[in-house]
Amino acid sequence: MHLTLAAAEALVFEVLTRNRVSEANARSVARALVAAEAAGQGGHGLRRVEAYSSQARAGKVDGFATPSLLRPFPAVVQIDANHGYAYPAIDLALSVVPDIAREQGIAAAAFRRSHHAGVLALTVERFAEMGLVALMVANAPASMAAWGGRKPVFGTNPIAFAAPVPDADPVVIDMALSRVARGKIMAARQKGVPIPDSWAFDRNGQPTTDAVEALAGTMIPSGEAKGAALAMMVEIMAGALTGANFSFEASSLFDDQGAAPALGHMLVVINPDAAGGAVAAARMGRLAEEITSDPDARLPGRRGQNARRMAIENGIEVEDELVSLIRAL
Amino acid sequence: MHLTLAAAEALVFEVLTRNRVSEANARSVARALVAAEAAGQGGHGLRRVEAYSSQARAGKVDGFATPSLLRPFPAVVQIDANHGYAYPAIDLALSVVPDIAREQGIAAAAFRRSHHAGVLALTVERFAEMGLVALMVANAPASMAAWGGRKPVFGTNPIAFAAPVPDADPVVIDMALSRVARGKIMAARQKGVPIPDSWAFDRNGQPTTDAVEALAGTMIPSGEAKGAALAMMVEIMAGALTGANFSFEASSLFDDQGAAPALGHMLVVINPDAAGGAVAAARMGRLAEEITSDPDARLPGRRGQNARRMAIENGIEVEDELVSLIRAL
Repeated sequence: MHLTLAAAEALVFEVLTRNRVSEANARSVARALVAAEAAGQGGHGLRRVEAYSSQARAGKVDGFATPSLLRPFPAVVQIDANHGYAYPAIDLALSVVPDIAREQGIAAAAFRRSHHAGVLALTVERFAEMGLVALMVANAPASMAAWGGRKPVFGTNPIAFAAPVPDADPVVIDMALSRVARGKIMAARQKGVPIPDSWAFDRNGQPTTDAVEALAGTMIPSGEAKGAALAMMVEIMAGALTGANFSFEASSLFDDQGAAPALGHMLVVINPDAAGGAVAAARMGRLAEEITSDPDARLPGRRGQNARRMAIENGIEVEDELVSLIRAL
Repeated sequence: MHLTLAAAEALVFEVLTRNRVSEANARSVARALVAAEAAGQGGHGLRRVEAYSSQARAGKVDGFATPSLLRPFPAVVQIDANHGYAYPAIDLALSVVPDIAREQGIAAAAFRRSHHAGVLALTVERFAEMGLVALMVANAPASMAAWGGRKPVFGTNPIAFAAPVPDADPVVIDMALSRVARGKIMAARQKGVPIPDSWAFDRNGQPTTDAVEALAGTMIPSGEAKGAALAMMVEIMAGALTGANFSFEASSLFDDQGAAPALGHMLVVINPDAAGGAVAAARMGRLAEEITSDPDARLPGRRGQNARRMAIENGIEVEDELVSLIRAL
């Protein structure tokens, strides 16, 4: 089915408000899920509406929560999502952190008691569109082990980064730290097909081609030991420093059972003028030019930005079944 | 040959001061190179003395430079290494940034006109020993392409991170973003042996097993496209934001030809109390405990810390040839 972005947002808004979510929160969530869909990130898009709704009904996420903000130090804010969705908390950061970063040179926002952070690329990009450089990390329910280990301790713990480029879209980087998304293994299990042995370890820490064994084991980090170390860095920033749950303490984002996930995110925003003087913008242009002068090299973020432009113009295609499922909610 | 750490430092100090380096700078450099050696990072240790000395003699690095510091914004300092070695600039950051981070909650130091940043693990660890969380990135002469590209644009651009753990050594992460160190390919070339095809691309962007072709090509990033994207993030933070040279503009760290490398580093230091309240330390302990409860899992940084303890007790082993070479300088 073909939907304009406005129609898709209206659909999500309506479903959420009928499932114990406030209008303000439903608007924020609808915008974020549809933006993910428009950027080609369906895994963080409309497919999430079902779990988001059932969690609100069950009280696993508080659809009426309002995020609160403290500024205990001049350059740091603590944002408590109060067991609500992440997006209203992220919107609050977007309204407060840019001025602090401009004034202090660098600023951090530490999020706690939060939920699925969605497509981090879309958040950091919004800071870059304001002329700022942003780094964001988030933890997520555990699916990766520490290097050499067997127990899931870390989530796929994404890292995202964006920086403005003069007269061009920002550079936007966003990566989960597992080699592949867990959804790919879930899809293989559903189809009953084997997976490459580079995707996951079984319960004994051995590479496996069996999707069932893989889901009972742990995801292989991108770059092996290095990816596992980065996942630990993210866990410390998003979990230990924020007062959020660790990945291994968080409940699932896909069902309505158990306590709130209470996940954490950390956002660091830099005023590019602070670090290198007014030349930073010109230097970003120079770097982008050097990279794109290599015919086959890619600037990160372009695919999502182009997908979004197409979606704004032409709307998005959503599977009929998914639209029916959402409408039934 | 067996040397105590003090004897090794005295040797490096003497060589440098006889090669146009001030006593203060020679002391700082000697301490850093010997600390690298003690941590088992010989590639950033005494083997660097020859190039460091010849560069000082040639004026490619200014052995008499004193780093200078500006604080244009409350939470950001700019440190100009003034074409000297990196270590005196890093020492300056260590004397100033902790107080700013404690007071502001987060602080950044942007280094420009700097040189080989050495073992970043050792720098971030010093902040963690003061109870702070530190993230540091550095660029380096170009050896990796943007993903899909053929031209070297990024250095192996390391990322390092450290955080304190109560009643234990800090967690310390430090990784170059290439799959392997370039030194391994140089060693294979010297021995005339082939390399695995996962280490480097040739000039046409194709994986190669020929060390000569590899050195004329580019290093394969750890985690492929994800590693290349992280290298770009580092390049932006350490290069674009600081006013330093980009990796592709920097001269070699291994010879005495050309202009100063004028590399950049970016350091971000977080007061753990700022983001999550006084619980952060306890939470770090909980995370470390969870990881080490998995029998084969490793906490990053332990190998270097154990090597250092051994070296403090027993001194270090240095190849006779290397000691002779250094003495001859």
